[in-house]
Amino acid sequence: MSDQIYITGHKNPDTDSICSAIAYAELKRSLGINAIPMRCGETNEETNFALEKFGYQSPELVEDVKEKSIVLIDHNESNQSPNGIEEAEIVEVLDHHKINFNNSKPLIFFSKPVGCTATLVYEKYLEAKVALTKNVAGILLSAILSDTIVFKGPTTTVSDVEIAKTLAKIANITDLEKFGIELKKQKASLFGKSATDLINSDLKEFNFKDKKVAIGQIEIVENSEFESRKKEILTELQKIKEAKNLSLIAFMATNIIEMGTTLLCVGETEIIEKAFHKKVAENSVYLKNVMSRKKDIVPPLEKAFS
Amino acid sequence: MSDQIYITGHKNPDTDSICSAIAYAELKRSLGINAIPMRCGETNEETNFALEKFGYQSPELVEDVKEKSIVLIDHNESNQSPNGIEEAEIVEVLDHHKINFNNSKPLIFFSKPVGCTATLVYEKYLEAKVALTKNVAGILLSAILSDTIVFKGPTTTVSDVEIAKTLAKIANITDLEKFGIELKKQKASLFGKSATDLINSDLKEFNFKDKKVAIGQIEIVENSEFESRKKEILTELQKIKEAKNLSLIAFMATNIIEMGTTLLCVGETEIIEKAFHKKVAENSVYLKNVMSRKKDIVPPLEKAFS
Repeated sequence: MSDQIYITGHKNPDTDSICSAIAYAELKRSLGINAIPMRCGETNEETNFALEKFGYQSPELVEDVKEKSIVLIDHNESNQSPNGIEEAEIVEVLDHHKINFNNSKPLIFFSKPVGCTATLVYEKYLEAKVALTKNVAGILLSAILSDTIVFKGPTTTVSDVEIAKTLAKIANITDLEKFGIELKKQKASLFGKSATDLINSDLKEFNFKDKKVAIGQIEIVENSEFESRKKEILTELQKIKEAKNLSLIAFMATNIIEMGTTLLCVGETEIIEKAFHKKVAENSVYLKNVMSRKKDIVPPLEKAFS
Repeated sequence: MSDQIYITGHKNPDTDSICSAIAYAELKRSLGINAIPMRCGETNEETNFALEKFGYQSPELVEDVKEKSIVLIDHNESNQSPNGIEEAEIVEVLDHHKINFNNSKPLIFFSKPVGCTATLVYEKYLEAKVALTKNVAGILLSAILSDTIVFKGPTTTVSDVEIAKTLAKIANITDLEKFGIELKKQKASLFGKSATDLINSDLKEFNFKDKKVAIGQIEIVENSEFESRKKEILTELQKIKEAKNLSLIAFMATNIIEMGTTLLCVGETEIIEKAFHKKVAENSVYLKNVMSRKKDIVPPLEKAFS
């Protein structure tokens, strides 16, 4: 292993995974560590918008991290990590998700239940007494607004909001809400996207007991466009379920304005009914106030499987 | 769950598990959190010596933590946790061991590869800007000297040594080494102890692949007494292996003066040979410079099983 370390978020990277990787690598480099941010997949429109606004380019695409030294951010479950993670050396984890981690060597593992990894990256800057540039503040702010759904998501904590306000000052963003909605809307249009692209844009795999489950999520700003695509998306979900040999695949279309999720599901859909005490009709169920895969979907689903 | 939280180390508690639990609970209480330290087993002579010297009593014995809110310190693997942990709510983890952890809800998880949890507890006092009393410093110092084998163990880091020096000043301990050896010797005599007690004094279970393995450790200051007990200990290891349905049980007698370990093993002993490239004769092998279960035994053994 070289003394170079790669900082990576999860597969199907979101704004937090990309922006936190860039900002955390900058902090490490300012502390004399040879750290470079990477991505293991395409960035989405929302992330591109944030990067462009604050003068950054997409981090290096690394297809396989075999034999590299790796800092995992914004995830800790190996099935969400880049390819080759089993043969990489994980030197650190910085995350805000549930933990399902196994490593034979002790390492720095820091996780806190806040709304966004970027909130923790900001804390690391504070700890190290390193000042944030305007642009680093801007991408960290974008990540927080993205992950907390402009503070509407249930994972939002007081820390996320306070730190976002501080970052907004440094980044010279006067209207936080307005910037947040502008950012979120980049990704919320389904126009011109194939069903495959929609599902794969943010699909995560989980192992609940011995069952393989995948849960995807998109954000939408109005329902009619999504309703007209349902059938096509369900056909694609069925294909992915078979190809990946899943027990269940669920797909959340979360309306960030009306604050609710239409959940499409294929496979053992009775588990969905058990978890949410609602009838699934034609592979679809509407869940009011459900915004977060991590907080609103994964825990009841994991419980229902157990 | 009540708003009371219990802070607990691992089964067969050592000085770090007990002293760090007491000190971390004191910190939490000074921050307005209703935290109480607990133990899930008998304390050993070394721990009792440290507690007595600095005016503490053994923490409350809790046999089952079902439905309690729990902070895990000095371990993270559930098979090392108190009984009932599956039905408890884990709210935080503070540890320095390898990670094998699974929890459906995000929580504060902080782990760093230092020699002792007490080193991290000291850092938490610093972070919270809470001053340490002489007695808290004394028990944290005892834990560091114990876990690092008076700085001779391979897990010792610069942080452990620096923080121990700072703690010694606060605790008014002038000769660190002398105090450390006095402390370690409390536990190092085998006199008057049954083979069962020796093995169970610090026995930890691991799952390597699908194999259940237990590894125990004692510290000794001279070999002859141990040599004369070998046969009796092997008989007892065989019994435990059968009772617990283990693939392998290993028992380390670590001489802290000559810095080496006699390893007794029962079960799939060929794995020991594979892991350490040494012949096991009559269920015994001597491993020079091997001091630490965590650093010297578990990683090569886990690799050999995989």
